[in-house]
Amino acid sequence: MSKEPVEIVGIGNAIVDVLSKSDDAFLQQNSLNKGAMTLIEEDQAEALYQKMGPGTAMSGGSAANTIAAFAAMGGRAGYIGKISNDQLGHVFRHDICASGVRFTTAPLEDGPSTARCLILITPDAQRTMCTYLGACVWIAPSDLDEAMIAEAGVTYLEGYLFDRPRAKQTFRRAADVAHAAGKKVALSLSDSFCVERHRDEFLDLVENHVDILFANESEIMALYKTEDFDRAVWQVREHCELAALTRSEKGSVIVTKDSDPIVVPVVPVAHVVDTTGAGDMYAAGFLFGHARGMPLAECGYLGSLAAAEVIAHVGARPQSDLAALVGRRKAG
Amino acid sequence: MSKEPVEIVGIGNAIVDVLSKSDDAFLQQNSLNKGAMTLIEEDQAEALYQKMGPGTAMSGGSAANTIAAFAAMGGRAGYIGKISNDQLGHVFRHDICASGVRFTTAPLEDGPSTARCLILITPDAQRTMCTYLGACVWIAPSDLDEAMIAEAGVTYLEGYLFDRPRAKQTFRRAADVAHAAGKKVALSLSDSFCVERHRDEFLDLVENHVDILFANESEIMALYKTEDFDRAVWQVREHCELAALTRSEKGSVIVTKDSDPIVVPVVPVAHVVDTTGAGDMYAAGFLFGHARGMPLAECGYLGSLAAAEVIAHVGARPQSDLAALVGRRKAG
Repeated sequence: MSKEPVEIVGIGNAIVDVLSKSDDAFLQQNSLNKGAMTLIEEDQAEALYQKMGPGTAMSGGSAANTIAAFAAMGGRAGYIGKISNDQLGHVFRHDICASGVRFTTAPLEDGPSTARCLILITPDAQRTMCTYLGACVWIAPSDLDEAMIAEAGVTYLEGYLFDRPRAKQTFRRAADVAHAAGKKVALSLSDSFCVERHRDEFLDLVENHVDILFANESEIMALYKTEDFDRAVWQVREHCELAALTRSEKGSVIVTKDSDPIVVPVVPVAHVVDTTGAGDMYAAGFLFGHARGMPLAECGYLGSLAAAEVIAHVGARPQSDLAALVGRRKAG
Repeated sequence: MSKEPVEIVGIGNAIVDVLSKSDDAFLQQNSLNKGAMTLIEEDQAEALYQKMGPGTAMSGGSAANTIAAFAAMGGRAGYIGKISNDQLGHVFRHDICASGVRFTTAPLEDGPSTARCLILITPDAQRTMCTYLGACVWIAPSDLDEAMIAEAGVTYLEGYLFDRPRAKQTFRRAADVAHAAGKKVALSLSDSFCVERHRDEFLDLVENHVDILFANESEIMALYKTEDFDRAVWQVREHCELAALTRSEKGSVIVTKDSDPIVVPVVPVAHVVDTTGAGDMYAAGFLFGHARGMPLAECGYLGSLAAAEVIAHVGARPQSDLAALVGRRKAG
C-alpha cells in the first residue's frame, strides 16, 4: 500500500451486503418500504434472512463502496469503520484492503457481530434494504485515525452514521479534525428516511460544517421539506459550497454559490439490473475528478460513468476495471 | 417443504465459494493449475485470500449446486453435507434451504470451520479453484439420513468425497443403502486430477457400484488413461448402465449399453462469463428430465439448457427462474 498521503478518507458503517432476488409481493408480505433502507434488530434480520431466497454476500456500506471505487480508479484512499472479529468482518476487511484502501480500524473483540444489510432486488432493478448495524454502532471517536484524516484532502462521511449516537459523535469529531487541518468535509445524505429522522441536525451540518454535499432528488427535497426540486437547488446553493444532486435517469445537477447549476447527463445503460450503489459510485467518480482538479462538469461525468458501471450488474461494488474506465474518459 | 418423498438426494462437500476476478499472471505467480481444483490447508487458503482481489461469496459445492438447481426446476430434493456452526455454515444452510432442498445434516460444533473454495475467474471464463475442506471432511456414515436415501429415486454423489477417508466411507455406505432399497446411484467424477488421485477406486465404482455416471471429456479420458475420447466412450459403455459425458462447446454424449451414443448439442450463449458450475448444472437438468421419464436426448437437452444459464454469469448457482426455463422447454 502506498505510503503517500491519502487523497480521501471515508467514514461509515462497515457492512456486508447479502443480495437476493425478490418481488413486490414479498416486500408487501414483510411490510418493507420499497427503495428505502430500514434499520432492523438481529432477530428481525435472522427472521427475514430465513424467509428470503438464496443470497450472494459481498462487502458493502455506503461510504465504503465509494472509497473502494475511488481506490479502484487509481486514487489513494483510506477507510474507517467498525467490524467485529468474525467471518463477515474478515470478508469486509479483505475486500476493502484488496481494493487498495488503507483500513486500520481495530475490530470489536467482544460484542455484536459484523453488520449485515439484506438487500432485496425486485425485477424493476430497485433495491430495498434492511440493515442490522451490529458492530458498526460501536465506532467511537477513539477509532478515528486523526493523522489520516488530517492528511486527506477530503473526509467523506455518510449520513447513516447519524442513526446512532456514538457514531454521530465520531462523525462530528472527524469533521472537526479535517477542518482544523484546512481540509474539506463531504457528506452523503444516504436515504430520504434517514434525512427525515435527523433533518434538523443535517440542516445544521449542511449550513455550518459540510463543504461538499451529495444527495439524490428525494433526499434533498426531504432535507428542505419541499416537493419542488428547483426550490431545493436554490436553497442548497445558499447553504453549501458545492452540492452534487443525482436524479436517476435525469442525470445530476452540480450546484455552487458562484455559478449557474451544471446539468450532467447520465451515461446510458442497455439494461439496468440493480441500482444498489449507484449513488455511492457517483460520489466516487465525482470526488476522483475533484481530487485531480478537473472541471465540475467533468467530475459529474465521471460520477455518471461509475454509476452506469454498477447498475448494469448485481451488487454495489464495481466489476470492471474502473481505472481503465476513468482513463479512457480522460484520454477521449 | 414438501413431505412427499424426495426424487433425488445429493451427498457432497458443503462449501461456500468465494469468487474473484483474476488473470493468468496471478495463477502463475501462485503456481495454480488453471481450470483444476486444488486442495489446500487453512493457512494456505488464508494466504491466497489475502493476495486475491475483492470477492463475492455464495454457496457452492458440486453436488450441492446440482441439488439446488434440481429443486429450483421444481424437483423434490435432499442434501447431506457437513458444515460448521459458524457464519459461513449459516450461509450454506440458508441458501440450500431457500432453494427448497431438504437439508438436515447436523453442523459440526467443535472443529474446523465451514469449507471454502477460492475461485479465480480469468478473462477466458475459466475457473481455477482452491478448496479448504474444513468441516466437510468430518462427514461420517452416521450423518447419512438413510430413510431419505432409501426413498430417493437417485442418490447423487460427487467424486470429490474420495479425497478424504471418512467421506469415502460415507460415500460407500450411501451407495449401499440406495441399492438395498432398489434405487439408483449416480456419480460425478468431479475433476480430472481427482480422478488421477483415485483412478483404481473410481474404476471399481463405475464397474460395480454406479448406475449413472457424469464426467467431462478430460475426466473420462483420465479414468481410462486414454487420449482418445471415442475409446473412453467405448469403455464406459461396457462398464456403466448410463453415462452422460460433457464436452464443453462440443455438447454432450449420452452412452448406454443398449443403444448408439446420443450426441446432444450445446445451447448457445452470447457471452460466456464464468464456467463455474457448468457440469453441476448439466447433471441437474439431465437428472430432472430423467426423474420425469423423459427420453435421454431430452434429458441431455435440459442439461445443456441449465449449463447455458449458469455460464452466462458469475457464480455456480442459477440466477434465472429454472422452473420456467425447463417449463418453456417442455411446452415448446
